[in-house]
Amino acid sequence: MIAALDIGGTKIAAGLVDRTGRVVAAAQCPTRSEQGFDDGTQRIVRLIRDLQQRTGKRIEGIGIGCTGPVDPRSGTIGNAELLRGWWGAPLAERLAHEFDVSAAMENDADAVALSESIWGSGRNAQCLVCVAIGTGIGAGVVCNGDLYRGADGGHPEIGHMVLEFGAGPKCYCGLTGCWESLASGPALEAWYADGAESVSAAEICRRARAGESRAVRAVERLGRYVGLGLVNVVTMYCPDVVLLSGGVMRDAGLFLDDIRRMVHELATQVPTNRLRIDVADLAGEAGLQGAAAVWLHRFAPKETRF
Amino acid sequence: MIAALDIGGTKIAAGLVDRTGRVVAAAQCPTRSEQGFDDGTQRIVRLIRDLQQRTGKRIEGIGIGCTGPVDPRSGTIGNAELLRGWWGAPLAERLAHEFDVSAAMENDADAVALSESIWGSGRNAQCLVCVAIGTGIGAGVVCNGDLYRGADGGHPEIGHMVLEFGAGPKCYCGLTGCWESLASGPALEAWYADGAESVSAAEICRRARAGESRAVRAVERLGRYVGLGLVNVVTMYCPDVVLLSGGVMRDAGLFLDDIRRMVHELATQVPTNRLRIDVADLAGEAGLQGAAAVWLHRFAPKETRF
Repeated sequence: MIAALDIGGTKIAAGLVDRTGRVVAAAQCPTRSEQGFDDGTQRIVRLIRDLQQRTGKRIEGIGIGCTGPVDPRSGTIGNAELLRGWWGAPLAERLAHEFDVSAAMENDADAVALSESIWGSGRNAQCLVCVAIGTGIGAGVVCNGDLYRGADGGHPEIGHMVLEFGAGPKCYCGLTGCWESLASGPALEAWYADGAESVSAAEICRRARAGESRAVRAVERLGRYVGLGLVNVVTMYCPDVVLLSGGVMRDAGLFLDDIRRMVHELATQVPTNRLRIDVADLAGEAGLQGAAAVWLHRFAPKETRF
Repeated sequence: MIAALDIGGTKIAAGLVDRTGRVVAAAQCPTRSEQGFDDGTQRIVRLIRDLQQRTGKRIEGIGIGCTGPVDPRSGTIGNAELLRGWWGAPLAERLAHEFDVSAAMENDADAVALSESIWGSGRNAQCLVCVAIGTGIGAGVVCNGDLYRGADGGHPEIGHMVLEFGAGPKCYCGLTGCWESLASGPALEAWYADGAESVSAAEICRRARAGESRAVRAVERLGRYVGLGLVNVVTMYCPDVVLLSGGVMRDAGLFLDDIRRMVHELATQVPTNRLRIDVADLAGEAGLQGAAAVWLHRFAPKETRF
């Protein structure tokens, strides 16, 4: 069994996952990073020990998917806005020591991409890009079985590439016209509300299906910008599979065909004849499977993963 | 010695390059791809045999950098606009057979990036992006000593990422507002001429240095778009070194500082504290060194390359 930890700003999910990606037991607790790292690790250790006791299983390693920037080489948490109080904390090392097994940590978007590449609908991809579009836009790139990393293990933040310089409200990243500011859930909500009271992205999609003209236009605009961002993703990474996930993608049926057409029409300088753009399986266990995949990717030889 | 071939639309350069990257002999002939592949290979074989005779050196392998799309796995030429008559030609295989050595081919932008990563000012980079800005915009990405490749060995065409959707004239790629249509030499020339008679990019830069206001504005605009494209390059690949080359970069002194500032201000979601953006050494042998690097990258163990 692999002990899997999916660490978000609000809650920590823990699970035991076998090598086929099956989650055999799971539990969770609040994150409360502001209470400090010692408090957090104590709760995490307890979660895992409880799972072990409940199932009677031994663990061979610990995989962690964590929100925000992380240093995958050292297994330490970066300065994630949502994890104040844990900045610089050597979580992987601490847990490895506590359980006397190997441990690895990655950004949660990378974790999900690894999971999709090992067990999911990206498992036959040569080059897989998993894009999560919800409150923000994040992605992981897996080529030939390995995670794309830049210098110092750097994780691309493709939600903040510029698409239409000068368009839309200024993003916290400093740009005006980055992908996240144009195609995230909040971007959809802000455009629809236009200063009036805000309505949820899901409700806007419901109204669009009912034919309300402003909602239809809002969803068309969202689809156009999701598609335009994917044009750049395809042009810059040359994937054969793109998997979309995140809250906004629950209503992908409204614009998925438009997105596919747009990518084929506008990403003309790289091969797209074998490109597949799909919505990822949105089952609730993606986070834990991702965390387990992090450990497998780091410590298990490729031929033993499946 | 490595036999190196740099194949462009107009001419073919051949050379013998040693493992330190020194070009010990070179020669060239016109490309004339319209005369067909047999004619072309005969001339290439003759060029290499002449170099061998002239120097008395034996060759251990053949490296090729070739314009346009290529298939690096099979060593065949793609449907490059500039190489009509050679589409689908198995050049690497033919030359390997002819000289009884191993041979490898890559896109020429990838070849130059490999050369910079092995012998050039990118040799200590963990993640190097080499961007050539001239008639078009092309790039190669080398991370941890390996070339970035997408599915089927696909080569990213980052000159055709969109930066300012809707801006400027429509590109042949189908987009309005891609990087190449905004920041290449021809883009500079077209904006400056604005329908009047065209002036070369080099002349526009000369006039900008002399203080002509329209030329100053044209160069500022060019610098802004070069910088904006690099914001995306940095956000999507997380390099620690970016090297710029190509005709437009001969005058980089006019805007290099602005570019660097722009990247640091607008690529805020990935680490840029160790990022270096420089102009590549523009010596004339980059093409042959790149071709030799292609062979080394494919066939020589990393520890024997330098």
